[in-house]
Amino acid sequence: MARWIGYTHDGRAGFGRLDGEQVTVHEGDLFDAPRATGEILPLAEVVLDLPCRPSKVIALWNNFSAMAEKQGLTPPVAPLFLLKPANTYRPSGAEIAVPDCAGRILFEGELGIVIGKVAGRSARDLTPDEAAGHIFGYTCVNDVTALEILKADQSFAQWTRSKGLDGFGPFGPAIATDLDPEALSVKVRVNGRERQTYPLSDMIFRPHEIVAMISRGMTLEPGDVIACGTSNGSGPIPKGATVEVEIEGIGILSNRFS
Amino acid sequence: MARWIGYTHDGRAGFGRLDGEQVTVHEGDLFDAPRATGEILPLAEVVLDLPCRPSKVIALWNNFSAMAEKQGLTPPVAPLFLLKPANTYRPSGAEIAVPDCAGRILFEGELGIVIGKVAGRSARDLTPDEAAGHIFGYTCVNDVTALEILKADQSFAQWTRSKGLDGFGPFGPAIATDLDPEALSVKVRVNGRERQTYPLSDMIFRPHEIVAMISRGMTLEPGDVIACGTSNGSGPIPKGATVEVEIEGIGILSNRFS
Repeated sequence: MARWIGYTHDGRAGFGRLDGEQVTVHEGDLFDAPRATGEILPLAEVVLDLPCRPSKVIALWNNFSAMAEKQGLTPPVAPLFLLKPANTYRPSGAEIAVPDCAGRILFEGELGIVIGKVAGRSARDLTPDEAAGHIFGYTCVNDVTALEILKADQSFAQWTRSKGLDGFGPFGPAIATDLDPEALSVKVRVNGRERQTYPLSDMIFRPHEIVAMISRGMTLEPGDVIACGTSNGSGPIPKGATVEVEIEGIGILSNRFS
Repeated sequence: MARWIGYTHDGRAGFGRLDGEQVTVHEGDLFDAPRATGEILPLAEVVLDLPCRPSKVIALWNNFSAMAEKQGLTPPVAPLFLLKPANTYRPSGAEIAVPDCAGRILFEGELGIVIGKVAGRSARDLTPDEAAGHIFGYTCVNDVTALEILKADQSFAQWTRSKGLDGFGPFGPAIATDLDPEALSVKVRVNGRERQTYPLSDMIFRPHEIVAMISRGMTLEPGDVIACGTSNGSGPIPKGATVEVEIEGIGILSNRFS
């Protein structure tokens, strides 16, 4: 297993492999045989940046059996999803200034699939077996949602705007490769108190199934992120709170919401 | 008024101002005082490319009074929208291979607002007056939609997937600046026969109002495109058809769907 991070150091952007408390600096394309430069940086001396720059972030709805059961939702026959725009992306550690218009906001801790690169094969119309090979790794996502905006119009559920405000899609801190997420749990803490915890084994669609089904007619690009949906326990983010989304092996995505 | 295009010429990407049948080649940032290089290319010798690379394409629903009336929809109090991902973008002239999974597909001819750059002011929380200054120009959009996918799930309208398949968001051929779109009409032809025509004066939200309201809590970037929604007359794209979306002063967005 490896964990990859993006960072800035002395104002310079870079990326590298996280080895304990050190960053083994790399160059080239994270998704296509990056090369170690020989430089090593102490983690404490860098500022975390996004671990990748997605061309799109896809976010699933209704993908956990326990939540579907509690809310009386029928399990879907294929993944149901929306997109989160680039203005939502924030790295771990970034303070997120919540727009005044947002009203009440909720955290949703989620597993994020990060798409990689396979030589000679674009990520389109993949079988589940092929899809597994297109998964580069996994990250943590906080799929922040403005509840009142979501439900403000009776005729059109505002998934995009309610989840698309500036800073509403932090992800990170790292991308972990060679991880089996179905053995793991998502845990969310608000100001240090655990508020959400659920097992990833409860997903209705498993990661390779999600990638395969979403790739039908829609090309996924290296660095694209698919947030796998949340389960029970999503809850409010009070003004000034720090929200941590933790998945073992990936790390802790931590953001203060001001 | 100026019309700006992107192109490739001898395998090299570039952009320029369209002057009649000639391209006045420019360099630098289209949205920040681009400089003429002195090179002139005959339009016939270049292949059209996208006129800009949006970080997001926002597409409005229910923004024309005539369509709202016909469909019995209440005019919204703020723009209702979804996002079209980068895998949908195609320039005018590109042939679009419709994915097999799409089922029946519809054209929707639309006006596209292209966001520009204003020194010292990001496009966030704009007043309508400020918003007008952030509009760089206008383009034509074909907001292609897979009707059966949109309505396949009773619990979740699939706006994103039905409008997000590969090639479902062609726009172009150019960005026209200093245009008053409200004096103009959108016309769509399928295989040369006019199928949709409606006046842009019928918009529920006008372009500067759309930009102002969408910018509340959501930063718009230079090159972002906002498709203003369609009106009555949207219809099917038969296999092999060529669809043209025309707005006077911008030009004709033409794509064959195979």
